[in-house]
Amino acid sequence: MTKVGILGATGAVGRQMLECLGEQGIETEEIRLLASARSVGKEIPFKDGVLRVQEAKEDSFDGLDYVLGAVSNALSQKFRPAIEKSGAVYIDNSSAFRLEEGVPLVVPEINGEDALHHHGLIANPNCSTIITYMALAPIYHLSRITAINASTYQAVSGAGMGGIEELSEQVEAIRTGKEVQVKHFPAQIAYNCIAEIGSYTDNGYTTEEMKMLNEGRKIMHDPDLKVTCTCVRVPVFRSHSISVTCVTEKKLDLDEVKRAIDAFDGDVLMDQKVPTPLMTSNQDKVYVGRIRRDLVNENGITLWCCGDQIRKGAAANAVEILKYLEDHK
Amino acid sequence: MTKVGILGATGAVGRQMLECLGEQGIETEEIRLLASARSVGKEIPFKDGVLRVQEAKEDSFDGLDYVLGAVSNALSQKFRPAIEKSGAVYIDNSSAFRLEEGVPLVVPEINGEDALHHHGLIANPNCSTIITYMALAPIYHLSRITAINASTYQAVSGAGMGGIEELSEQVEAIRTGKEVQVKHFPAQIAYNCIAEIGSYTDNGYTTEEMKMLNEGRKIMHDPDLKVTCTCVRVPVFRSHSISVTCVTEKKLDLDEVKRAIDAFDGDVLMDQKVPTPLMTSNQDKVYVGRIRRDLVNENGITLWCCGDQIRKGAAANAVEILKYLEDHK
Repeated sequence: MTKVGILGATGAVGRQMLECLGEQGIETEEIRLLASARSVGKEIPFKDGVLRVQEAKEDSFDGLDYVLGAVSNALSQKFRPAIEKSGAVYIDNSSAFRLEEGVPLVVPEINGEDALHHHGLIANPNCSTIITYMALAPIYHLSRITAINASTYQAVSGAGMGGIEELSEQVEAIRTGKEVQVKHFPAQIAYNCIAEIGSYTDNGYTTEEMKMLNEGRKIMHDPDLKVTCTCVRVPVFRSHSISVTCVTEKKLDLDEVKRAIDAFDGDVLMDQKVPTPLMTSNQDKVYVGRIRRDLVNENGITLWCCGDQIRKGAAANAVEILKYLEDHK
Repeated sequence: MTKVGILGATGAVGRQMLECLGEQGIETEEIRLLASARSVGKEIPFKDGVLRVQEAKEDSFDGLDYVLGAVSNALSQKFRPAIEKSGAVYIDNSSAFRLEEGVPLVVPEINGEDALHHHGLIANPNCSTIITYMALAPIYHLSRITAINASTYQAVSGAGMGGIEELSEQVEAIRTGKEVQVKHFPAQIAYNCIAEIGSYTDNGYTTEEMKMLNEGRKIMHDPDLKVTCTCVRVPVFRSHSISVTCVTEKKLDLDEVKRAIDAFDGDVLMDQKVPTPLMTSNQDKVYVGRIRRDLVNENGITLWCCGDQIRKGAAANAVEILKYLEDHK
């Protein structure tokens, strides 16, 4: 029986964390929902009852075994010392500490063991990164992957509740002939694609795109892995899709690749149908399809994968880390 | 003064061809709109008046200088002999003859001269192919491109009027809680992405994806060009976008690449803003942005381009071919 806090419990990821806690069969003695002052008293349904949101303060974490974090980098940085002091293990979905030395960056099916070597803080990787490497890990286990080229098709809910509302509102504005309001995204997202997620880094790639490289290297324990990524927002509510080509050291047989993906915990091989974001919404599996030989490099494999980025790309992965720690106590 | 027929005048591309004929300042003595029997008598506005649709029959092409084709492969094959017999030059947007020897496959800004060596039939390339190579041609002119990796974000209007209606109807069905009807696409396209355009070929790529390779080789006169492509339908009404990485023989300077794209007729360099499909809708230019060094191959360049696939990807390109022939008479 554990005591779990959710920091940022009213956001899209925080709410999903609560749902995943229930589903994963983690026996909890207490679930403490923490959020900003304006959400205090909000009731959130859980199992047969409701849980009431409390204000997140410095002393909110006392007595907890785990804190699941679903807040901004700034808030995660602010609360880290207090969580550390409380003795709870902090499983953080923000990107603030992902690349910090000594902080495991974990996808349980890929590098779950890393979680066991934590010093109080474990980071949850970026959503597109989790989904892409869930598809690539079984290939990597057959032969080291040296290079990845990825183009993403990212759902609006990756930007939280505000992203979902913005797409809905814009579609409605267009239908009724009203002016389209742009708030969260750099341009209208309804019936549009925006190849700009995150802010720009010096090399012209965005912070979101560089996560696929930097976080991928850490998860795969491979500092030499080369990755080029283009991140694109599309007018989809839920589930990210990624078009990926990877190059392996050895030339792999396509059937061997398919069998490896099929056998990999957390992946669903789609050999006859093409995975779509709709197909993968509201579940924890990553669907992998369109597996074929790259036509540029004979050691290359090209594929298409989809996964629910609020679940496997964020909340479910964080809860799976918690479960991994519990199971290996 | 020329006499121009449009075969398939009532479809999305056919209507756009008529509009482009007016815009491109081509002096026409006659424009003959040809379509199936059920469209006969339909009036289509043109300049200050209207044009009336006639039934396309074997003898419909007599006296014409050019026929612009915007029909299916089967219909294009059916009418080819009649058009040939009439003596008109057939500029065909179908994919039926694109790879046939002796049939030029032309993007006027790239290989306009090829059009001059026709034998009565000139093919208009695939929409995504045109837009991608419009972005890549100026790079290719600096140094031969050896390999391309492309992922497309294709608008529903690429599937014609029916595709546009299907997205609209599905969005409306979802809003009103009705059942979503799937007709033209392999799955629901509203709020979804479908990585399946065209039919499958033996190597697991779709016919649409193989066009990027086979048509690209013909347009660039480079039978050794290597191309891997993933074609994806997205819930956008108009304009295709493509995420592309290309590898050149020589390592190019990024500023040199940007200057070349900026100087290339038909391209718009977007250095400060990111091109979107909405931004490029209803115009003939291809917008190229996000130009940066590939992080896998030091001779690689990664970019994002958008273009209106009904215009530059189809109708405008066909009319530009006609104009090129007229200008070089």
